Amino acid sequence: MERISLPVPIGALQELALAAFRCCGLNEADAEAAAEVLVTTDAWGVYTHGTKSLRGYARRLRGGGLRADGRPQIVRQGPAWAVIDGDSSVGMVTARFAMRTAMDKARACGLGFTTVRNSCHFGAAGFYAWMAAREGMVGQAMANDTASVTAPGSRGPVLGSNPFAFAAPAGEEAPILLDISTAAVAGGKVRIAAAFGQPIPPTWLVDLQGAPTLDPHLYPHAASLTPMAGHKGYGLALMIETLSGLLSGARLTQAIGSWIDSDPALPTDHGHAFLALDVGAFFPLDQYRQRMDELIRQIRSAPKAQGQERIWLPGEKEWEAQAQARVHGIPLPADVRESLSGLIGDLGLARPDWL
Amino acid sequence: MERISLPVPIGALQELALAAFRCCGLNEADAEAAAEVLVTTDAWGVYTHGTKSLRGYARRLRGGGLRADGRPQIVRQGPAWAVIDGDSSVGMVTARFAMRTAMDKARACGLGFTTVRNSCHFGAAGFYAWMAAREGMVGQAMANDTASVTAPGSRGPVLGSNPFAFAAPAGEEAPILLDISTAAVAGGKVRIAAAFGQPIPPTWLVDLQGAPTLDPHLYPHAASLTPMAGHKGYGLALMIETLSGLLSGARLTQAIGSWIDSDPALPTDHGHAFLALDVGAFFPLDQYRQRMDELIRQIRSAPKAQGQERIWLPGEKEWEAQAQARVHGIPLPADVRESLSGLIGDLGLARPDWL
Repeated sequence: MERISLPVPIGALQELALAAFRCCGLNEADAEAAAEVLVTTDAWGVYTHGTKSLRGYARRLRGGGLRADGRPQIVRQGPAWAVIDGDSSVGMVTARFAMRTAMDKARACGLGFTTVRNSCHFGAAGFYAWMAAREGMVGQAMANDTASVTAPGSRGPVLGSNPFAFAAPAGEEAPILLDISTAAVAGGKVRIAAAFGQPIPPTWLVDLQGAPTLDPHLYPHAASLTPMAGHKGYGLALMIETLSGLLSGARLTQAIGSWIDSDPALPTDHGHAFLALDVGAFFPLDQYRQRMDELIRQIRSAPKAQGQERIWLPGEKEWEAQAQARVHGIPLPADVRESLSGLIGDLGLARPDWL
Repeated sequence: MERISLPVPIGALQELALAAFRCCGLNEADAEAAAEVLVTTDAWGVYTHGTKSLRGYARRLRGGGLRADGRPQIVRQGPAWAVIDGDSSVGMVTARFAMRTAMDKARACGLGFTTVRNSCHFGAAGFYAWMAAREGMVGQAMANDTASVTAPGSRGPVLGSNPFAFAAPAGEEAPILLDISTAAVAGGKVRIAAAFGQPIPPTWLVDLQGAPTLDPHLYPHAASLTPMAGHKGYGLALMIETLSGLLSGARLTQAIGSWIDSDPALPTDHGHAFLALDVGAFFPLDQYRQRMDELIRQIRSAPKAQGQERIWLPGEKEWEAQAQARVHGIPLPADVRESLSGLIGDLGLARPDWL
């Protein structure tokens, strides 16, 4: 008989994530910082990039490819930019440091840009863009990843699904938050379809001949993702590769280790890039907030297409899920619970009563 | 009997564009700068955004909505950024000034960002991104525009087709150049289909009820463009609106004048944004160039999908068209020739022998 799974209080999930990172040797500050990224992402309802990934990060921390005592460092900088070496620390720790650095520079110079090498998978790019929006800044966050996506005309993977996030503050309205993969769909969604035995649309994957396939089990060994909007997503992925990988000196495309499938004893050497723009430097912040509120309300109240009840602003689904989660807990899907069960087994942690 | 149209030498097209801008009262430097943007765009084979637009710009210059004696000016700045007022000068003049300003700041500070108000349609965004790549910098260029594109769930236009361009230098290889609309397709392509009586794919337009339509004649009065990749293109368009319109104080969405259809006596008040990153500040430039060449060659030589002969890098089609145009002239399509014929009629210019 299937057990009924109740939503998990945010604090309870944070405790488990903290315990896992502590168990892997992270100091308290790093464990807190990394856990908060993953749990916030789950609270947003973005379960592909939340605590589901903990088991994989723990595997790499125990294997040595991720260093629990790694310390991201600025290796080169100017007043408005920095190149950061992640020292193979946990991706979320390095990414928070790098976005914070970009924001500090933006506070002083109007804008700040950081590019990062020697990092790993950093969870949801949107978290870092949102860090900027919370403090009156426009933020961008992006990362390269091991090749899994075709280019128009190729039959094998050429670039990663290189994610891109953007956030902007508003006034009374919630911030704008966009977090997208430059693949037609994120690889995590294909893995979920495979796990649940679901078919996928013909636009998600191509097989070894470059022909569309409906079988999610072929990914990634015998199928590749397709780029978002064809040449447009391919071009944007190449832009992200340039800003994250080429400007930082990180590895590129095939040379990047898969954070899931590669030898956990080896660093993956992902690259990231972060941009922060301090709104108040460019335009009076209160007027900006008022105009952004007006724009948001104008879009929301636009006439609906037949059969449509609502026009969503980027991020609104996340804010609503988070508000629900604060009151009722996070309704973790079965695949996340299963991964967390595996995690506590791997690490010998006490099983929480909600799992 | 239809006349056979020979390709037009680049210099001859430049002469016509120059004559048109001079006739509208631009000084020699501005006329040269604006003409070069349009003729280069035609040489790239991007005919929707080249000299075809001259007639519309001339109409606004003679109407007074564009000011021949306008002077773009920095109204607020820091070492790494500037807010620019275009003073209703020709969009190409203002955009070149704004990208040059961003590049000067990048030379001094590692990166430079400019946001622009009181501008107009600036031709192809790619030209300005390419300005940066020619000088060893990564460049981005973008603009907002009058609302013509739906959001997922809306039946009318919500945001503009807000273009985005990115360019990056290479070594022995040609630079990367990406220039895309955040609509599924640029409005100019719908207008061409209407002019030639061609049907369009069901993914380009929705009618007044928000349902797909195959009739290009409905655009823009009774149909809207759809966003590229659904919520992703919609979110990116909102990002561009933020960087181009909200940070600069330019008009937004519906409030922006259509540069084609609105009263030519009135300014359109478009916004733009430009970013330049000086590669050599972040990473040794010669090593960057070598790595970019390797990446380009790796992508180009990836295994091809069945029936595919070539994987194109972003910009390669433009560079090949330009190389051909330098030798053989520009094979201007009929709609561009027709627009140029109208232009010389409007302005009373001498008809060149090639038209």
